[in-house]
Amino acid sequence: MVKAGVLGATGSVGQRFILLLAEHPEFEIHALGASARSAGKPYRDAVTWKQTALLPEVARGIVVEECKPEGKFAECDIVFSGLDSDYAGEIEKAFVNAGLAVISNAKNYRREPEVPLIVPIVNPEHLSVVEKKVADAKKQGKKEGFLVCISNCSTAGLVAPLKPLVEKYGPIDALTSTTLQAISGAGFSPGVSGIDVLDNIVPYIGGEEDKMEWETRKILGHPNADNTAFDLLDEEKMKVSAQCNRVAVSDGHTECISFRFANRPAPSVEDIKKTMRDYVCDAAKLGCASAPKQTIHVLEEQDRPQPRLDRDRDAGYGVSVGRVRADPVLDFKMVVLSHNTVIGAAGAGILIAEILKAKNVI
Amino acid sequence: MVKAGVLGATGSVGQRFILLLAEHPEFEIHALGASARSAGKPYRDAVTWKQTALLPEVARGIVVEECKPEGKFAECDIVFSGLDSDYAGEIEKAFVNAGLAVISNAKNYRREPEVPLIVPIVNPEHLSVVEKKVADAKKQGKKEGFLVCISNCSTAGLVAPLKPLVEKYGPIDALTSTTLQAISGAGFSPGVSGIDVLDNIVPYIGGEEDKMEWETRKILGHPNADNTAFDLLDEEKMKVSAQCNRVAVSDGHTECISFRFANRPAPSVEDIKKTMRDYVCDAAKLGCASAPKQTIHVLEEQDRPQPRLDRDRDAGYGVSVGRVRADPVLDFKMVVLSHNTVIGAAGAGILIAEILKAKNVI
Amino acid sequence: MVKAGVLGATGSVGQRFILLLAEHPEFEIHALGASARSAGKPYRDAVTWKQTALLPEVARGIVVEECKPEGKFAECDIVFSGLDSDYAGEIEKAFVNAGLAVISNAKNYRREPEVPLIVPIVNPEHLSVVEKKVADAKKQGKKEGFLVCISNCSTAGLVAPLKPLVEKYGPIDALTSTTLQAISGAGFSPGVSGIDVLDNIVPYIGGEEDKMEWETRKILGHPNADNTAFDLLDEEKMKVSAQCNRVAVSDGHTECISFRFANRPAPSVEDIKKTMRDYVCDAAKLGCASAPKQTIHVLEEQDRPQPRLDRDRDAGYGVSVGRVRADPVLDFKMVVLSHNTVIGAAGAGILIAEILKAKNVI
Amino acid sequence: MVKAGVLGATGSVGQRFILLLAEHPEFEIHALGASARSAGKPYRDAVTWKQTALLPEVARGIVVEECKPEGKFAECDIVFSGLDSDYAGEIEKAFVNAGLAVISNAKNYRREPEVPLIVPIVNPEHLSVVEKKVADAKKQGKKEGFLVCISNCSTAGLVAPLKPLVEKYGPIDALTSTTLQAISGAGFSPGVSGIDVLDNIVPYIGGEEDKMEWETRKILGHPNADNTAFDLLDEEKMKVSAQCNRVAVSDGHTECISFRFANRPAPSVEDIKKTMRDYVCDAAKLGCASAPKQTIHVLEEQDRPQPRLDRDRDAGYGVSVGRVRADPVLDFKMVVLSHNTVIGAAGAGILIAEILKAKNVI
Repeated sequence: MVKAGVLGATGSVGQRFILLLAEHPEFEIHALGASARSAGKPYRDAVTWKQTALLPEVARGIVVEECKPEGKFAECDIVFSGLDSDYAGEIEKAFVNAGLAVISNAKNYRREPEVPLIVPIVNPEHLSVVEKKVADAKKQGKKEGFLVCISNCSTAGLVAPLKPLVEKYGPIDALTSTTLQAISGAGFSPGVSGIDVLDNIVPYIGGEEDKMEWETRKILGHPNADNTAFDLLDEEKMKVSAQCNRVAVSDGHTECISFRFANRPAPSVEDIKKTMRDYVCDAAKLGCASAPKQTIHVLEEQDRPQPRLDRDRDAGYGVSVGRVRADPVLDFKMVVLSHNTVIGAAGAGILIAEILKAKNVI
Repeated sequence: MVKAGVLGATGSVGQRFILLLAEHPEFEIHALGASARSAGKPYRDAVTWKQTALLPEVARGIVVEECKPEGKFAECDIVFSGLDSDYAGEIEKAFVNAGLAVISNAKNYRREPEVPLIVPIVNPEHLSVVEKKVADAKKQGKKEGFLVCISNCSTAGLVAPLKPLVEKYGPIDALTSTTLQAISGAGFSPGVSGIDVLDNIVPYIGGEEDKMEWETRKILGHPNADNTAFDLLDEEKMKVSAQCNRVAVSDGHTECISFRFANRPAPSVEDIKKTMRDYVCDAAKLGCASAPKQTIHVLEEQDRPQPRLDRDRDAGYGVSVGRVRADPVLDFKMVVLSHNTVIGAAGAGILIAEILKAKNVI
Repeated sequence: MVKAGVLGATGSVGQRFILLLAEHPEFEIHALGASARSAGKPYRDAVTWKQTALLPEVARGIVVEECKPEGKFAECDIVFSGLDSDYAGEIEKAFVNAGLAVISNAKNYRREPEVPLIVPIVNPEHLSVVEKKVADAKKQGKKEGFLVCISNCSTAGLVAPLKPLVEKYGPIDALTSTTLQAISGAGFSPGVSGIDVLDNIVPYIGGEEDKMEWETRKILGHPNADNTAFDLLDEEKMKVSAQCNRVAVSDGHTECISFRFANRPAPSVEDIKKTMRDYVCDAAKLGCASAPKQTIHVLEEQDRPQPRLDRDRDAGYGVSVGRVRADPVLDFKMVVLSHNTVIGAAGAGILIAEILKAKNVI
Repeated sequence: MVKAGVLGATGSVGQRFILLLAEHPEFEIHALGASARSAGKPYRDAVTWKQTALLPEVARGIVVEECKPEGKFAECDIVFSGLDSDYAGEIEKAFVNAGLAVISNAKNYRREPEVPLIVPIVNPEHLSVVEKKVADAKKQGKKEGFLVCISNCSTAGLVAPLKPLVEKYGPIDALTSTTLQAISGAGFSPGVSGIDVLDNIVPYIGGEEDKMEWETRKILGHPNADNTAFDLLDEEKMKVSAQCNRVAVSDGHTECISFRFANRPAPSVEDIKKTMRDYVCDAAKLGCASAPKQTIHVLEEQDRPQPRLDRDRDAGYGVSVGRVRADPVLDFKMVVLSHNTVIGAAGAGILIAEILKAKNVI
């Protein structure tokens, strides 16, 4: 069994890491880290558990530690970070410097050129940068720590159906996404206030649009020739525009997207539907336990996907696409639904770890 | 007092016409029409009243008639139609043929070249076609009936802020709108099912996207040289793309829009904000009772407009715009909020009638 | 495998029967019945599928029949009825007369003295009446049809925690329940209108309070000495008062209940919590596949149970109780949560059938 | 004009005081107090305005002060406190000691025997205690400060319809209320978390049930013979039991209540409906500007009152009652709806002040 640690274990992302690890066939919870206030308490007393599933038995008694790369954490094969960005910067750096493998949901290091930003059903090939780093160190008899970042939740849904399309039809030169985002992504202490989403829409999520616009250009890009860092796709060659809204949905981000291919003539609606349907992500090819059976579900019903009905396909690791049709302004428009706390957060971390394990990096 | 009739008086649009008429300084309810099943009953018994405001005293005792251009209806100066499209076609035609002035919320005749499609804070100048028709008939000593159509609710919100912009900066050649639409627009028998909007989004509203795409090109266009009919703006010169969603909001349609001007260089963000702020609609210049004091509210708070907080500005006759900013794909993006049952339906009908009265057409 | 038929297969209760049967270890779908309009079509075309889970493969191709006790239905070991009460009366009678075993969710025959009204985790011993009837017929070489009714959903939640209490502490002489009921119970065509539950409560559900008040007195009562019929508990000896509300919850009925025992002194809060916790329903003792591991979950957190967090305990077959405390007016008050479409409807039917099978009645 | 101060002016209750004062015919905003962090800023910069109505012009520029009984506050005729209970204790005491008249929404002093706890449409006669105190001081040439407490919001709705009933039919000896409470009562920083009320109920509101149980016995009681203090009605003679739930409603508390009169025979349903309808509160008799025209609206529609449809009757100062019917356990049951931020909080404070002014106490 792979020994897993969780940083920020009492927060909303941390709780989901724990849920997923508790039932995992290959991973086991080895260390849980939280603030000094929680350290020393059994997890059941440190946490205000807010998940639909019950607090797993296996986690209840684990004594929470401070978030330091020592003690149980030093023994971990992989460390998942659900830390708030206020704390993630320092702590994650310390863990990597101590030679640990860290997969983080925080935004702090996503833009660092040498850090892979991964949506595991989209660009696991970007992990080659850490594979190389670890292999190089190994040759020198050293153990090298590294950091992998999970993308922003709304970026994950956006890039998933685009990946097979750019692979087949070449670059997308213009892309717009208007999101209708669930509240679970905002955590719960306090998270989104009830009065803000009752009979209401909040047409703004701080920093979200910017993240979607540049993360897309990193994830759909490539490592440099040395396999050591990533350049963003050129902003002029791939224009991305996001408009983000918070709506009264618990889980599942809906995105109304439009896009245009750089190459002419563009494929047909049927072409792109087939291409998305036929896409099998590398995680599935590697046989990863959490990989979706069907990566992209292309729905034909005219009023789908819907978050309540479709967010749990493939346990939240599959993405649903519907209403694929021609767009009068760009080439195509369609609706994309992804599970923000699975493929857009903790679940993505788990699947990244599975891929790293399948590739013998951890 | 102007004698007003209401067709479809027991439906959701009809109820709102009655609410607005009951408190109107210049109009009085003279005739209420509904199905044969309701005819003969006092309105209070015929209706299942579903409005926040109480059923107005003045309407309670009015005996409902069938929807025929006779009896009390024949005496009306203006007839508002809240009929379902299943019935509106035949009935409205009969009323016009009988020489009555009809303002309809139904979609049936909106695309007819000789019928003005009006958002009263946007294109009341299109009423010149019926003005001419009525004036020509008058010269011949005849009374001519006519029909004016109210636009689709989501179109109203879209075109309102664009009107002053195209007036000042010339044509828009590409326009996208992703809507988050309230449920009140769908009526209430049954209207939108609760299970469809609880913890959910429905990314489809039948016929809505098509309506937004062509109605915009009629409303922002012009009558022909004869002043007898309307041509749509050319689809190639003004590309419009809509994506429509139903969300858990009672009243108020939010739209995330992007647009590009045909002329270069485009104005600045500050330019277009000022132009929208300075816009005074003709209805306000004419002193119409329901005209908004401020036609377009340009908000500076980064998380506004929000439907619960902003839909009732100017009693729902004003439109709110926020987050005006440059768009990486087109020129600008912004969020527009309009009250779908006021400026997008019954309220628009009332304001159109006020304009017709101010111009002595009725 | 037990051959199962479903009447009203396209409706909301019917769809849930199909979901539960599709994954059942002992039952298989043998016949699906719906209106003449649907008959002859494969199920996938006849149904507007509205469940969170996908339409099961096994049901997609089954050709829908009319609801007549012939053809495939005549071969069924058990028939589940999700029929609307407008149709259930005639059809269920015909099925029983044809010698079929029917478990119905409709209200039509619930009050019939000879028909058992069953909450499977509460009063499966009432099935003795049909056991006897079937056994008597068997002795005479005949096959006897019979009907078992599923209780109203809000009754199921109410009686579940009371059963072990009356068994141990004797009769309850006064009982009140104020419900906060989910919308799924009302079906979806149209079901509860969105505008009725958005930022709103509807403090009325037609017929519901009456059903709760008398059904409780049937379910907590006993068969007569002949084991042929049921008398209701005397209304004066067990006063029941219900107040029912519809709220914006998808699944899970919450009930705030108070009750008083006839016997003095009353037990303590700790007594009744232990008694509820220790309760093991007969279905569990019989090893039924769907029986809850824990019948009554007694929660200690002061703000639980909550529908979103607790409705799925034991796959919806367990009932959650919280805030057990002394009541200034009666003896105790507490909050009860039950899953209305599982233990309160289709799921109850399946578990009843499992019990009948375990007892060799089917 | 009466000079009014507002303590806690940036909070949710404070904002509502400001809204009500800004349009008041007799009161004007003279001083606004908030934390040291806000002091010195114009109100528009100090506040995060969260109301549906726009921030009133008249308040925008007022410079916020610290909450001390000096400066502008010392000049106030009346001071409204919307302070959090963490701060209200010290600050309100200081204001009263400085000779100021304070009306507080905080819970701190509600139970103090000498402090009147007032629902202005129910027990304004309890203000006699402060009238006497002020008059006594006046005789001695002194100005005496005093404190009046506003009741808890859910208590206000509960006691309103009961007041005319106990006046006419004598004491109620048993009373139960199960509440479905709006989220606006919990403020908004953070207030109720969205995830707690989306597709959910929280069956617990800290301290609320206790408050309802004893406040009712103070408000329906009487001052002592000296007119200097209040004794609670005896707990044994008036048993009150509350169960409180938080639901997804923005404004308006719904309560399902049952009650029994001590005297036999009890009146009829028609009797009590007439008595509630005929009730005219003292505030209306005194001609107070905010007094409801109809104090208790007794609705006959079987599915009313509903919060979205009925909360704004008489601008929120009237209470709606529906479904009045016999109760199998106590005498009667019915549904009560009251506007929690109007008659249950800030609005009550304003109406209390109007009564004090009408009685020349301020």
